[in-house]
Amino acid sequence: MSEQRIRCAALLDRVTTPAKAAELIRDGMTVGTSGFTRAGDAKEVPIALAERARTEPLHITLITGASLGHDVDKVLTEAGVLARRMPFQVDTTLRRAINRGEVMFIDQHLSETVELLRSNQIGPMDVAIIEAVAITEDGGIVPTTSVGNSASFAILAEKVIVEINLSQSPALEGLHDIWIPKPRPTREPLPIVTPHDRVGTTSVHIPLEKIAAIVITEKADSASTVLPADEDTALIASHLIEFLKHEVSRGRLSAQLPPLQAGIGTIANAVLAGFVNAPFENLTMYSEVLQDSTFDLMDSGKMTFASGSSITLSAAKHKQVFQNMDRYRDKLVLRPQEVSNHPEVIRRLGLIALNTALEVDIYGNVNSTHVGGTHMMNGIGGSGDFARNAYFAIFATKSIAKNGNVSSVVPMVSHCDHNEHDVDIIVTEQGLADLRGLAPRERARVIIDNCTHPLYRDLLRDYYRDALTLGGQTPHRLERAFELHVRYRETGSMLATAV
Amino acid sequence: MSEQRIRCAALLDRVTTPAKAAELIRDGMTVGTSGFTRAGDAKEVPIALAERARTEPLHITLITGASLGHDVDKVLTEAGVLARRMPFQVDTTLRRAINRGEVMFIDQHLSETVELLRSNQIGPMDVAIIEAVAITEDGGIVPTTSVGNSASFAILAEKVIVEINLSQSPALEGLHDIWIPKPRPTREPLPIVTPHDRVGTTSVHIPLEKIAAIVITEKADSASTVLPADEDTALIASHLIEFLKHEVSRGRLSAQLPPLQAGIGTIANAVLAGFVNAPFENLTMYSEVLQDSTFDLMDSGKMTFASGSSITLSAAKHKQVFQNMDRYRDKLVLRPQEVSNHPEVIRRLGLIALNTALEVDIYGNVNSTHVGGTHMMNGIGGSGDFARNAYFAIFATKSIAKNGNVSSVVPMVSHCDHNEHDVDIIVTEQGLADLRGLAPRERARVIIDNCTHPLYRDLLRDYYRDALTLGGQTPHRLERAFELHVRYRETGSMLATAV
Repeated sequence: MSEQRIRCAALLDRVTTPAKAAELIRDGMTVGTSGFTRAGDAKEVPIALAERARTEPLHITLITGASLGHDVDKVLTEAGVLARRMPFQVDTTLRRAINRGEVMFIDQHLSETVELLRSNQIGPMDVAIIEAVAITEDGGIVPTTSVGNSASFAILAEKVIVEINLSQSPALEGLHDIWIPKPRPTREPLPIVTPHDRVGTTSVHIPLEKIAAIVITEKADSASTVLPADEDTALIASHLIEFLKHEVSRGRLSAQLPPLQAGIGTIANAVLAGFVNAPFENLTMYSEVLQDSTFDLMDSGKMTFASGSSITLSAAKHKQVFQNMDRYRDKLVLRPQEVSNHPEVIRRLGLIALNTALEVDIYGNVNSTHVGGTHMMNGIGGSGDFARNAYFAIFATKSIAKNGNVSSVVPMVSHCDHNEHDVDIIVTEQGLADLRGLAPRERARVIIDNCTHPLYRDLLRDYYRDALTLGGQTPHRLERAFELHVRYRETGSMLATAV
Repeated sequence: MSEQRIRCAALLDRVTTPAKAAELIRDGMTVGTSGFTRAGDAKEVPIALAERARTEPLHITLITGASLGHDVDKVLTEAGVLARRMPFQVDTTLRRAINRGEVMFIDQHLSETVELLRSNQIGPMDVAIIEAVAITEDGGIVPTTSVGNSASFAILAEKVIVEINLSQSPALEGLHDIWIPKPRPTREPLPIVTPHDRVGTTSVHIPLEKIAAIVITEKADSASTVLPADEDTALIASHLIEFLKHEVSRGRLSAQLPPLQAGIGTIANAVLAGFVNAPFENLTMYSEVLQDSTFDLMDSGKMTFASGSSITLSAAKHKQVFQNMDRYRDKLVLRPQEVSNHPEVIRRLGLIALNTALEVDIYGNVNSTHVGGTHMMNGIGGSGDFARNAYFAIFATKSIAKNGNVSSVVPMVSHCDHNEHDVDIIVTEQGLADLRGLAPRERARVIIDNCTHPLYRDLLRDYYRDALTLGGQTPHRLERAFELHVRYRETGSMLATAV
């Protein structure tokens, strides 16, 4: 088996145990691992590292593509291994440690991490751990279900550990397109001009001597945790599709639509699923994560091509897709997240970008990251890369949370990840606000009227009316701007009387 | 004289009076004019339009490159002509009308306005008024001291009025590089790979029949209002130069430095002036506005090339530069603001971006636009285009304003234009905070320690200590987050006792 997966004979003798490989990592090091939206993460060596931390001091900076599966962040947190963590995470245990100030979490635009590393603004990276489906005859590392930051990590790290994952389908080989920008100041344009352009190589090439250890695993990717569409997410999808149909009928968009980007999660997945029955044809995606909905759209004949940095599927969909990869092979490409999320390509292609908001305010600013303005949820991820540079940027959220005790529309966002300059459309199950070309006072009226839940509409109107008495481009009464948030913290509800 | 400036004979009979030309503009229209940082603005027809508004209802949407000179925004505001205005302004009278809610102001990233117009997300544009130094034999419109959005306005508008300005130096001809992206979805890479690349034409070409009127003027550009360096701005420059020297000595930057961008205004101009005596050589700029300091750096032999979208100079410098244009000609290019501010080029070149902050908070978020969170100052301008995509983004501000009654460092910015994800360096006369790779709790300590004025340091430490008791990635006590701002509004000072 190993010989089929490690086709470069010179590397066969570097196969070792996870514990032995983990010995390459010492206290204080910066470690990069593969893994993006739970897909293609390194599954063995990080766990062996946590084991070793039982008996010796071991604190590292861990940099990944995005989120990991298999409780890797949980296990490392519980073992006290994580001193610093970037650029994204979704783990409950790690999140608590971050919010207690025990782990320093640096929340970054996903396109930027390797740019910072390459220019020595963070790092240097000591060890990279990369999951691979195979190593080619000439030593090329073939990633698995994600590319993420793996290629640049392997290039920039002093030593590389490869985790060959026998459970990952050999059919993955050939799907990847590895392209790395030249160093500045002699960098050239990124040559992608359509979602299906292939501009790089199908594996990652580094000097063979840097591959310091190879580990074999059979652990499968953790399955997607995306929930099925519900009544509210179906309404969000329906408002959005009506809006897009309207844009097509006004001649602003073609019925093919620009390439789509959709953030990870239940709402974005549900909206994409809604396109199966919408009157748009020959859709393409230029996105970061490809979820169940991408393959549903391909199966329905609606989508002709999808470019991403990872494939994260439910268990059932995973089985179906990888048993029928021949059906999808020529419709897919997996790219480094620096490329999938690159401002240059996003603006050139003119994407429709759909991302999820944690809360929005009456002027169209968006909080994607901080609960109550203070506590980190997951991180900004790629939402900034896409929203800033897209043809237009849509943010979706349910209008209320916590059984109605939280309004997702507030007077002022308690943390601002995307501001009025970058937010074009807000959609909730209540309706859609098209903010393009509107001044803040106009935005306030359309957001309150169209997007807020009836439970909170009068509260927000009252706030806005009061704020107007002080005037301004963006009227606020600062002493009241967070009164809903403070009331929630103190009483458990943003409403004067809990529902 | 007209024949030298209007070299296309077929157009000579379109010369008319400003009042007659202004008749092309009717109530309800969208009008685009040249003008960027007071340079190269249309100076006659807008004033004639205001005159006409005395006798008939006349409300327009006015879109410019950036700010105008000659009180054009003031005159139009007083005449009640401005219903909507985008994407930037600096006029006191207009600002007041915006803050009273009388003019709807849409504050945009300067690279994005024509992208929105081109895709019919704003507009359509009825009339464009473009200042020109000449019209070539084949009808090419040669801009004057700014390109701004002029080329795209001329292309996209139904009718074009040209203001030939005899006071603008004929030496301007040849400085411009007009490049317009192809429509999406078939757009190609923007081919600029160094600040001095020329990729377009030296004049703007549109069908001759669209040129509906030509007006002659001799009004000179309004001079720059930038103040000379003072003790505080000199300190800011000195902190920044020390930091850059340190980066060079650590091998992270070459002594040539990456191309520089500097926002408009006194602080950025003073910092650039500081480079005259700094140990960096062969500097280049890839910026939006070229100010006095650019030419001082060229005169001192420190700067070899500058790319911008406009030239805005003091009266004395203007005279010196344009009387000696031969000395500068091969060191200059003026581009459309869509190109000077394009994310694609900014990221490719890896600029050092220097912009001014109105206020910053202890976590490194920046407010560039709203006084007290509510009242518009000027607009975000190009700061977002540059800060997001630069090699690193520096924001400079004096640590206090209003004789010490305002701290520029606050617990939470009252309006967020640039968030923690995009802000790398904060510098005040007190010192510099290098935020790269730091988590919010680490940022708070370095910003409070290094950048705040001693008058406010304990207040901010107290706030942070209190906020820490509630925990979180970004500790805040929301009910106190704006207490400095509210105190200032109520008492005239952020201090408990006014200084």
